[in-house]
Amino acid sequence: MRAERATAGHTGDDDGGVTSPTRGSDRVVALGGGHGLYASLSALRRVTDRLTAVVTVADDGGSSGRLRRELGVLPPGDLRMALAALCGDDEWGQTWSRVVQHRFRSQGDLHEHAVGNLLIVALWELLGDDAAGPMSASGSTVAGLDWVGRLLGAQGRVLPMASVPLDIVAEVRGADPARPEETSQVRGQVACAGTPGKVLSVSLVPPDPPACPEALAAIEDADWVVFGPGSWFTSVLPHLKVPELARALTRTRARRAVALNLAPQPGETDDFSPQTHLEVLQAHAPDLRIDVVLADRGVVEDTDALDKAVRMLGGRLELADVAAADGTPRHDPARLAQAFAQIFR
Amino acid sequence: MRAERATAGHTGDDDGGVTSPTRGSDRVVALGGGHGLYASLSALRRVTDRLTAVVTVADDGGSSGRLRRELGVLPPGDLRMALAALCGDDEWGQTWSRVVQHRFRSQGDLHEHAVGNLLIVALWELLGDDAAGPMSASGSTVAGLDWVGRLLGAQGRVLPMASVPLDIVAEVRGADPARPEETSQVRGQVACAGTPGKVLSVSLVPPDPPACPEALAAIEDADWVVFGPGSWFTSVLPHLKVPELARALTRTRARRAVALNLAPQPGETDDFSPQTHLEVLQAHAPDLRIDVVLADRGVVEDTDALDKAVRMLGGRLELADVAAADGTPRHDPARLAQAFAQIFR
Repeated sequence: MRAERATAGHTGDDDGGVTSPTRGSDRVVALGGGHGLYASLSALRRVTDRLTAVVTVADDGGSSGRLRRELGVLPPGDLRMALAALCGDDEWGQTWSRVVQHRFRSQGDLHEHAVGNLLIVALWELLGDDAAGPMSASGSTVAGLDWVGRLLGAQGRVLPMASVPLDIVAEVRGADPARPEETSQVRGQVACAGTPGKVLSVSLVPPDPPACPEALAAIEDADWVVFGPGSWFTSVLPHLKVPELARALTRTRARRAVALNLAPQPGETDDFSPQTHLEVLQAHAPDLRIDVVLADRGVVEDTDALDKAVRMLGGRLELADVAAADGTPRHDPARLAQAFAQIFR
Repeated sequence: MRAERATAGHTGDDDGGVTSPTRGSDRVVALGGGHGLYASLSALRRVTDRLTAVVTVADDGGSSGRLRRELGVLPPGDLRMALAALCGDDEWGQTWSRVVQHRFRSQGDLHEHAVGNLLIVALWELLGDDAAGPMSASGSTVAGLDWVGRLLGAQGRVLPMASVPLDIVAEVRGADPARPEETSQVRGQVACAGTPGKVLSVSLVPPDPPACPEALAAIEDADWVVFGPGSWFTSVLPHLKVPELARALTRTRARRAVALNLAPQPGETDDFSPQTHLEVLQAHAPDLRIDVVLADRGVVEDTDALDKAVRMLGGRLELADVAAADGTPRHDPARLAQAFAQIFR
């Protein structure tokens, strides 16, 4: 059983009047996790037909955390959200997207489990069973994700950033509110995202996990690599703490873009200005050059300060209207797609 | 969200060299459950492109039993097997078939749950959420099954035989081995299928459940109705104990075919000859006329006796080689398809 990604299983009308008519063929790799990566993928799949998501695998909460502990698999939640974002715009694709995101609510065993998490795990188990000899964990993980993508008609490929489950460890100041100046370590994505203290930096356990080989290859071959938007410390920066991945991201001849968040995230980045986000990024990967930073025109208060921070990274600032029209702090997929298309051109 | 069944979501190559090139347009309704219905549907989808399965909803064991108790839904297991049987022959369809049939094995909450059961329940929940006003249970149940069929590219429609979960109650002689001549009642599909006694007849609780309206309409409009193969008392006969369904099956102008089993089933039909199966069928639905009884040529020992039993039901006996070539007591889908095509012609 092998997923030929070139031919999607579903060959219905994917347009739905939303896909950009000028979808190009730039090889784009989007890095992140959670809702932020969902936003960038929802936009990027309209801009290119050669899209790869490289997704964090450090979640330890909810359905993902339970599957990780119960079945010893990679936490599938961020991978699932990425696949949901890549479903087509027609009714078939959008129904699949809703189904994989659906969570059971009950008083029993299934409570909180997301359907797509179970689907991903099922393919991993089936592919593992298929392997006649000892199959590399990474091989069957990627084959399983490729198959889920094909079954859902996903418009792009979804890969984990590492071949083993990870834990995020954060350096936090004031994790204990009684000692606001003390710095301590907080372990686990849920704990890091919810700490009352100020997150200073993140690292990973294990500290040198095997990167997913297919992710390294995608980064090496890419025309563009896109960081963010997303939870800065728990979804965007972890990729830079996988040493192999950080080296590939630094070395690749691809151009590098950063899409900034629309609002600080309660807990993680409470008082962060846009430029603070970039400073933290640089602190986590001092050798990384950035070509373009994309920010929403309406969100940036001090354009000069941000422009300066962007130039410190070697790049240029691109301002665009990418926020949803309803004023909520989320990206509008069509507007974000427009902005990426502009940048890639 | 509404599943337009006319256009399947997946439009890949469904042929795979297996589908009969002469797939007709007879309106065929197949009744049953479990592995027996899986066999008839695997064959019938090669014979007609207008296939409807009407499936028992009385399972109370395993994954289905837990979902029924935890979430208050119809037991989805037999519906899932029917959908798996209707998946296409190409790699995409066959992978979907394997995925929906896949069961998790763990020490935890997910143990034994079949992926397809969870998928069906998820669509029921999503469709229920969609309903702006009070939606009939039957309406959203059918809409959910239609959607799962569309998502999987199923070649036919799957309907429940009733709109509420059912319990099978069996009259059993010798349920208590210490009292071999005593007749008592055994309740629940699992208990009935596993009783050490001899099953004499089955009935349902509730005794007059609402039939699925779409199933009644399909039977009324059918050219052919097919009973069996399958677990006689727990998968084939229960349909006749839903009064509305029994009336529709008796009244329809469709011709009626019975596909007999290849071997007696341990527990349920230990010493049953083919003609005993027909006698029990007649005892459960005295007014039902049968047009054709299909039996495997190699299995029937006393052709005259069977022929006589068939004529008692008003029909003719059709003998064909429908068993798998490897000698195991299971139907070969291509051979069974051939036999059905012959009968329908």
